[in-house]
Amino acid sequence: MQPRITLLTLGVTDLKRARAFYEAWGWTASSASQPGVVFFQANGLALALFGRADLAKDAHVDDRPTGFAAISIAYNARSKAEADAVYDRAIASGAHPVKAMQDVFWGGYSGYFADPDGHLWEVAWNPFFPLDADGHLFLPDTHRTEADHPDDER
Amino acid sequence: MQPRITLLTLGVTDLKRARAFYEAWGWTASSASQPGVVFFQANGLALALFGRADLAKDAHVDDRPTGFAAISIAYNARSKAEADAVYDRAIASGAHPVKAMQDVFWGGYSGYFADPDGHLWEVAWNPFFPLDADGHLFLPDTHRTEADHPDDER
Repeated sequence: MQPRITLLTLGVTDLKRARAFYEAWGWTASSASQPGVVFFQANGLALALFGRADLAKDAHVDDRPTGFAAISIAYNARSKAEADAVYDRAIASGAHPVKAMQDVFWGGYSGYFADPDGHLWEVAWNPFFPLDADGHLFLPDTHRTEADHPDDER
Repeated sequence: MQPRITLLTLGVTDLKRARAFYEAWGWTASSASQPGVVFFQANGLALALFGRADLAKDAHVDDRPTGFAAISIAYNARSKAEADAVYDRAIASGAHPVKAMQDVFWGGYSGYFADPDGHLWEVAWNPFFPLDADGHLFLPDTHRTEADHPDDER
């Protein structure tokens, strides 16, 4: 089984508002989007916005109010400066500040905001988890496959 | 701003139980894991397990009970057979069935389960969203950058 996260779907109460936030923050809606669902391409996975009632119905679960979702979606930046810029642009686009960007005990730099539906995002700079040019994050011990670096052996 | 999701952190009540579930399902814990946090490498992003109280504290939010988190994490498979196998292995590893794998109106095949902490996963086969060898999903209109395919022009 190949470990894989291919799509992250956020249930939202107002699809237009949610789309406007993500576009203002810097995401580009895909032409694969439809009237009831918006897709954005990320680093080898997609982010989707979908009505939360529709998501509950699709999953056969009850659309109860969210307390603490206990999920944080992270945007790792390449530098503190990029982290600040990404965080600031999210706030300027309508996100709610939750924890200001700050140096943290594990040696990085991190802050949190909530999107207009309350979905929790962390923006971080983690010097131990580098990113490649495509924005992929690789843990320090990752053995990349040949397919990750098709030209390594040339 | 490069659209990017680099880490998905799931707050859990019992880290050992959560780690055991993901390992049984087929994920491999990274050596970057620490006593209080477990990391798993996925397709260019990482999955993290972290105490939900710790996550709430880190984010400066209240650890209220979760109703409907309104987030679904998807595992797209390459075929219906792979989707069935991945779903069945999750259930056999301790996940709770939520919606059995079934043909769905948009032309794909999909089911949902909840991990031991209630985090909602969708397993799907979507013939319109192909995966590459690394398990990356690309929306139909994605213009891959040179960095995605460094050897295209050689």
